[in-house]
Amino acid sequence: MAKQLSGAGLRGQVAGKTALSTVGIAGSGLTYRGYDIKDLADNCQFEEVAHLILKGHLPNQGELAEYKALLQRQRGLPQALKEVLERIPKDAHPMDVLRTGCSVLGNLETEESFDDQQTITDRMLACFPSIICYWYRFSHDGERIEVETDDDSIGGHFLHMLHGKKPEPLHEQVMHVSLILYAEHEFNASTFTARVCASTLSDMHSCVTGAIGSLRGPLHGGANEAAMDMIEKFSSPDDAEKQMMGMLERKEKIMGFGHAVYSDNDPRNDIIKKWSKELSEQVGNENLYAISERCEAVMWREKKLFCNADFFHASAYNFMGIPTKLFTPIFVMSRLTGWAAHVMEQRADNRIIRPSAEYTGEELRQVPAIDAR
Amino acid sequence: MAKQLSGAGLRGQVAGKTALSTVGIAGSGLTYRGYDIKDLADNCQFEEVAHLILKGHLPNQGELAEYKALLQRQRGLPQALKEVLERIPKDAHPMDVLRTGCSVLGNLETEESFDDQQTITDRMLACFPSIICYWYRFSHDGERIEVETDDDSIGGHFLHMLHGKKPEPLHEQVMHVSLILYAEHEFNASTFTARVCASTLSDMHSCVTGAIGSLRGPLHGGANEAAMDMIEKFSSPDDAEKQMMGMLERKEKIMGFGHAVYSDNDPRNDIIKKWSKELSEQVGNENLYAISERCEAVMWREKKLFCNADFFHASAYNFMGIPTKLFTPIFVMSRLTGWAAHVMEQRADNRIIRPSAEYTGEELRQVPAIDAR
Repeated sequence: MAKQLSGAGLRGQVAGKTALSTVGIAGSGLTYRGYDIKDLADNCQFEEVAHLILKGHLPNQGELAEYKALLQRQRGLPQALKEVLERIPKDAHPMDVLRTGCSVLGNLETEESFDDQQTITDRMLACFPSIICYWYRFSHDGERIEVETDDDSIGGHFLHMLHGKKPEPLHEQVMHVSLILYAEHEFNASTFTARVCASTLSDMHSCVTGAIGSLRGPLHGGANEAAMDMIEKFSSPDDAEKQMMGMLERKEKIMGFGHAVYSDNDPRNDIIKKWSKELSEQVGNENLYAISERCEAVMWREKKLFCNADFFHASAYNFMGIPTKLFTPIFVMSRLTGWAAHVMEQRADNRIIRPSAEYTGEELRQVPAIDAR
Repeated sequence: MAKQLSGAGLRGQVAGKTALSTVGIAGSGLTYRGYDIKDLADNCQFEEVAHLILKGHLPNQGELAEYKALLQRQRGLPQALKEVLERIPKDAHPMDVLRTGCSVLGNLETEESFDDQQTITDRMLACFPSIICYWYRFSHDGERIEVETDDDSIGGHFLHMLHGKKPEPLHEQVMHVSLILYAEHEFNASTFTARVCASTLSDMHSCVTGAIGSLRGPLHGGANEAAMDMIEKFSSPDDAEKQMMGMLERKEKIMGFGHAVYSDNDPRNDIIKKWSKELSEQVGNENLYAISERCEAVMWREKKLFCNADFFHASAYNFMGIPTKLFTPIFVMSRLTGWAAHVMEQRADNRIIRPSAEYTGEELRQVPAIDAR
């Protein structure tokens, strides 16, 4: 007899082991391999954190330089992949584009053996920004952009391709922070998707393609896009307060607040909020920041709900001129590290993930002849 | 504190409810919505069973005719999708091709609302054979085939495109049986992948793309391909026995036997075995059938392991001239019905699937300066 679980959605049920992160354990809100998220965001570049998550330790100066050079060399896209991206229409969902780009890459550069898992992952880390920007700039501006730039970082590479010019140092810095914050989050739904796929011993591209599909869902990724859609409708902090009170009264869903695992606060919020403020001053758009702060105050006062990682990401990305529809693809560029590390961990101690179901359907019955139906 | 589960891979743990099928319940080995698999395979066409699984009841004559006509009308592929398929090399993994084809379709014909879920599913059922055959015939024979045929059934459509001529009635009949046998199997890993993805409220194409990626894994789909690779190396039943004894002695993995859920037999084996025998007589290749029977006898005598659904599928598909590498894509063309029905079921009573993990990693520690690493 299969064991009955208490909660729907496997909530609170242990589905496996991980050494990669802790989420919501008292005293340490979010840690990657034992390091607090604030400590990492204050002191590291994203490539250091990717190295930590994927290879188990923070790189020293030489290892970091080597890793960044390796990633830099792999930004180019195969011609066949570019031709596929050129056939995806402008109004496609950018997450569908990235899911497709990853899947196509799996045809052209297939993972033939698990010995290649790190190489395959590095390649994806290096070229996902190329995939999304190549499609975006071609479909929106009709331009076949050069994706092989000499930018120092993944975030810088992305901003450079998107805007057609080298990013300012502050923006590149904020991209480091943002990519660090989103890199890993234990058994969330997209990561769990990757692990279920990995448990059949499927290839890395299949695992990541599936994870992108799950992150696409509005209950998972996309909260920062929804937050942006909301705050850009507000003309001032007072207008924001008035309109939010109306939304709360009409019981409309307000995105970017609260969290399934964290109960008191999201440790990532303070970090991105500080950078959003700095960007607002730099670009001289203090109104949008003030609007965001007011939203935070109203939600806390009315609902005791705190901002999660997504809320101040909306204004921060907006200050850097990133189109709203590309917010969730940035999440992919970052979370790819966590997904791949979980796939490697699953492979290292695998049993196929095959739960049971409680049957609620019809009793055994006979097939009636077709003219007796 | 998260609840500790007993088994790895969520084995024996209830992860949700379903009214779609029962697997391995005593007295009824496999049922779809209450109908025994043998009853369905003996009395129905695949389209009747797809209708049953997706819409909840077996169609009457009028409903069946209408459903088949609807599927027939949707076999065509958008030009952009054909152009993508033409860019995938001949040596690609056919499951990667199908995963990509499904993902591209999601860009061109996006599910904008869950109200469209049945329409989107019907479209996939109708055109997946077109996707795989268009790529296969283009990459292998350099031919841009016509995918809009007037064949009566999905299986007939597939065989027609593959061989460039209308299939014999016996072959179309066996395809009905085969597609029925593979259509649905409760919370197996690919179906569970689709449900995890669905639980984020993502779109149908993402759910199915992810499921294809999981079915690609050698612990899940692909056992019939592995069985074929083995039996085609045997020259006679005696040679099969001799070589299998050697494989058993060397503890080599032999695919197509035993099952994670069934303990005594796989109810699908008797059914496909009978058809494999009939095909062997029709095509005059009784040696391959006799070899398969000897393998079955040896595995039972030596290991008390029974043939699962995959083993006699290998010879059956081979008798119909289907290339081995297309065996698992046929599984997709069939299981798509189960995946989509599970997605619909998940959506109708959803909570995001987000389990917990047991942490086995480093204790909290401080980030060292980069030159102190």
